[in-house]
Amino acid sequence: MVSRVVFGRGSFDQLQDILAPKRLNVKAPFIFLVDDVFKGDSWITSRIPLAYKDQILYISANEEPTTAQVDELVDQIILNHNDGPSGIIGIGGGSLMDLAKAVSIMLNNKGGAKDYQGWDLVKSAAVYHVGIPTISGTGAEVSRTTVLTGPDKKLGINSDYTPFDQVILDPELTRDVPRDQWFYTGMDCYIHCIESLNGTYLNAFSESYGEKAYELCKNIFVDDKLSDEEAQDQLMMASWHGGMSIAYSQVGVAHAMSYGLSYLLGTKHGIGNCIVFDHLEDYYPEGVQLFKKMKQKHNIVLPKGICADLSDEQFDVMIKVALSLEPLWENAIGKNWKNVITYDKLKALYQKM
Amino acid sequence: MVSRVVFGRGSFDQLQDILAPKRLNVKAPFIFLVDDVFKGDSWITSRIPLAYKDQILYISANEEPTTAQVDELVDQIILNHNDGPSGIIGIGGGSLMDLAKAVSIMLNNKGGAKDYQGWDLVKSAAVYHVGIPTISGTGAEVSRTTVLTGPDKKLGINSDYTPFDQVILDPELTRDVPRDQWFYTGMDCYIHCIESLNGTYLNAFSESYGEKAYELCKNIFVDDKLSDEEAQDQLMMASWHGGMSIAYSQVGVAHAMSYGLSYLLGTKHGIGNCIVFDHLEDYYPEGVQLFKKMKQKHNIVLPKGICADLSDEQFDVMIKVALSLEPLWENAIGKNWKNVITYDKLKALYQKM
Repeated sequence: MVSRVVFGRGSFDQLQDILAPKRLNVKAPFIFLVDDVFKGDSWITSRIPLAYKDQILYISANEEPTTAQVDELVDQIILNHNDGPSGIIGIGGGSLMDLAKAVSIMLNNKGGAKDYQGWDLVKSAAVYHVGIPTISGTGAEVSRTTVLTGPDKKLGINSDYTPFDQVILDPELTRDVPRDQWFYTGMDCYIHCIESLNGTYLNAFSESYGEKAYELCKNIFVDDKLSDEEAQDQLMMASWHGGMSIAYSQVGVAHAMSYGLSYLLGTKHGIGNCIVFDHLEDYYPEGVQLFKKMKQKHNIVLPKGICADLSDEQFDVMIKVALSLEPLWENAIGKNWKNVITYDKLKALYQKM
Repeated sequence: MVSRVVFGRGSFDQLQDILAPKRLNVKAPFIFLVDDVFKGDSWITSRIPLAYKDQILYISANEEPTTAQVDELVDQIILNHNDGPSGIIGIGGGSLMDLAKAVSIMLNNKGGAKDYQGWDLVKSAAVYHVGIPTISGTGAEVSRTTVLTGPDKKLGINSDYTPFDQVILDPELTRDVPRDQWFYTGMDCYIHCIESLNGTYLNAFSESYGEKAYELCKNIFVDDKLSDEEAQDQLMMASWHGGMSIAYSQVGVAHAMSYGLSYLLGTKHGIGNCIVFDHLEDYYPEGVQLFKKMKQKHNIVLPKGICADLSDEQFDVMIKVALSLEPLWENAIGKNWKNVITYDKLKALYQKM
């Protein structure tokens, strides 16, 4: 779990005080991995406390993070600095959170990031790392995974060393998120709740977090009676609780199939989940019904026909990636999931998208 | 915050696997501080994994923990073992949780425990420490404080080093809690929610945790439709969420006045809170109304007249301890609390108890 958290509007300004005691020496820099949408946005960038050899690396989140990207960032940091970093600070959405977590692990572990995709493969503790989310919903700020697309698979580095040492939850930082992105990423949280609360891995721990996140999502996306500030505050907490819920259970059908889409087509995680979930009424009937209502209420039009022109080979790749995520299927369907979820069933579902 | 948590019925059996990698060497023992109600209870004690120089210390929780008791335990551990401990494991209710946290801090910090009562006075990281609650409600398993009665005051050691490194939440361990104790300690959680949700320090973080804990308390103590196992599971989660809620806000009137009772009369925290809260309808009208309903439903009869024979000097001590807890009053009443809460008002309230 995350060791330390501060919460509050404007808490981003505490970053300097939080980092100061963690500086190893003047040559050991803090490296800030920042979503490049903030390049030139002085409201954010002027508040990043740079000193000595500290460095900002602006990174596009247009593509899902890859293992190769992590390895390149690690090489770049090692080449440009004589001393290892004092810390890695991720500022952005889920992609930036995951990159910060992965880079901080790979600075202290040999080989390439792809070698650690899986469960509990990391040997050495990560470099001190801080997460500052600027979009709410992914739960990446609280999870023990960092989801990466590798040469063979899309799979997280799941380990006890993955969670951030420090998180700053400042809901004000989410004020400029575009409306579509707000919805897609918020729905990532909503889908976490549905998959966790309807899964066979559910327990009282996951349930209490999942129920709270679900209730907050309904306040925000269905009831819609909150001020902008309240909605920002509550969505940041929903993301947190939703992340805690799946950390102690697992996601399900939407995530397994969305990973397939993303691996083959590069579909971003938030919108990919939405495209898949829209067709899962057989698996999550109430959850999908409410999703359609929220989609309508917020005038969201999802892309259609993204699988229309795919070849059989392409379907094959996508279905194999989805089916490889065994814990997700077991959570969703139960131990006998292989009797229920067939190759052809998934192909028929993908063909609708 | 707590770094690692496992949750689940029977998860107590994971203790050996959790501790093994934390053993510093064969001479550095794990010290188990265990509530002495479990002495001879092989269902618990046979599952405590002892090896090499490991030791169980049985401790009575009949009295609230004191700074002197912490100092004695630390001396005893240092005298009996050539090497410092690999870890301190607390097994019991709030008293044992607080003792385990305080001992692990004082093993690595000079002077006496009373020197650290306050906020952020601890200099060095604590010895590795694990909390295993066997009663639910105090939130001590998750909090960054350890409440101790010292020579001058009842006040916690509040620090970033206080929280457990590992918590094991096994609801099965609470199955034999006596009915009265179950109610009093459960009400500690309920009162945390009321004080947090009605406080001026409230924010979206505390609110989401407090609301969830409040809802779980209502399931358990008002609606009362759960199986025994469900009720145990949910109360353990309520305690956790209630603890998180106050960690990011503060408690209020009931806790301030209950600390006074406890300092002067040694009243245990759970029942002390109940005795005070029963008279706080002016401050928490709805919360007290529901409390009275729960008290009646569960046939709880609180002691009366515990302040009947006190001298003016004794009232003075009690009121001064209560008034010294400034953050609690500020949370409850606001910045101008000194205009509202007078010495005489507190005396009149205490005289009713």
